[in-house]
Amino acid sequence: MELLKQRIRQDGVIKGTDVLKVDRFLNHQMDIDLFDRIGEEFLCRFHGCGVNKILTIEASGIGIACITARFFHCPVVFAKKSQSSNISADVYSTKVRSFTHGKTYDVVVSKEYLHPEDRILVIDDFLANGAALEGLFDLIHQAGAQVVGAGICIEKAFQPGGDLLRKQGYRIESLARIKSMSEEKGIEFVD
Amino acid sequence: MELLKQRIRQDGVIKGTDVLKVDRFLNHQMDIDLFDRIGEEFLCRFHGCGVNKILTIEASGIGIACITARFFHCPVVFAKKSQSSNISADVYSTKVRSFTHGKTYDVVVSKEYLHPEDRILVIDDFLANGAALEGLFDLIHQAGAQVVGAGICIEKAFQPGGDLLRKQGYRIESLARIKSMSEEKGIEFVD
Repeated sequence: MELLKQRIRQDGVIKGTDVLKVDRFLNHQMDIDLFDRIGEEFLCRFHGCGVNKILTIEASGIGIACITARFFHCPVVFAKKSQSSNISADVYSTKVRSFTHGKTYDVVVSKEYLHPEDRILVIDDFLANGAALEGLFDLIHQAGAQVVGAGICIEKAFQPGGDLLRKQGYRIESLARIKSMSEEKGIEFVD
Repeated sequence: MELLKQRIRQDGVIKGTDVLKVDRFLNHQMDIDLFDRIGEEFLCRFHGCGVNKILTIEASGIGIACITARFFHCPVVFAKKSQSSNISADVYSTKVRSFTHGKTYDVVVSKEYLHPEDRILVIDDFLANGAALEGLFDLIHQAGAQVVGAGICIEKAFQPGGDLLRKQGYRIESLARIKSMSEEKGIEFVD
């Protein structure tokens, strides 16, 4: 998606060779006009796939998921990060390792909101090692629901998550795939 | 807002006399068609006030804030709850007591995203004792920006936050104001 790549080039801040800050428009300040174009693009890519629900994870996936859901006319469910060791019986839960924060979270969704007949599109802002996405897919499988695929804004294609999940048969659509980046040379996208 | 009140009566779950769970449509599963009507209603109430930015707090305010921002054609900034004691110099920070979780959070916003010329509408899902809203107003004041007001989905009007903030001169617009509630008698709204 050229508009998103341009915006990353313009407003993304690279730290070292693997941290990309997109706080200015994606995950702290959020450019809603851009989100509208992103949602429309996800609709183009997953149109006709029978998506009836969008699943994301708090916090930075929520905005993009909600704007995208307007195009699919479906509800959004967001998985919650829980630091309590008490997981109640009425939730599906999985463990997700955050490499950014060096922590492992329990990630939970109420059983009331995922059903076997659901066809679910997962939306998130970033894909790097794939831990969050794997966790969300796991929650969907626990519910006996169908993973339609994942719509990702920015994939760090130099990290293994995307290819690993594609090899497992998941459809992963990333709007901007970063091949490499550095403070000196900037960002190179795939293709 | 009659549509929201109806939905609370239909799908809200009351626990005791002061907990209202609206997980089914507002803050775990999110009904985006309803959010569209909520955003439109906030536009009606704050139209012509020069709002150029919306501020909310993670996680459950983000979806409503983003859908509302489509009507105002402005960006959203969400304040982050931080549990680390390291507050960096490039953020505004304040402390917010969560009565639900019995914790005090540091709540932060990057200085880059709040400016003295901003006219800011705060959006959140709930208003009860007013601690979150007070914290967000504090962040706005630290930036020297203007608080236009707050758009709240559900106000527990039997708790003191709303009236306290109104007495301080803030414009607080709540779409559903709960006068009282109990498992036996259900919910009574203000007017």
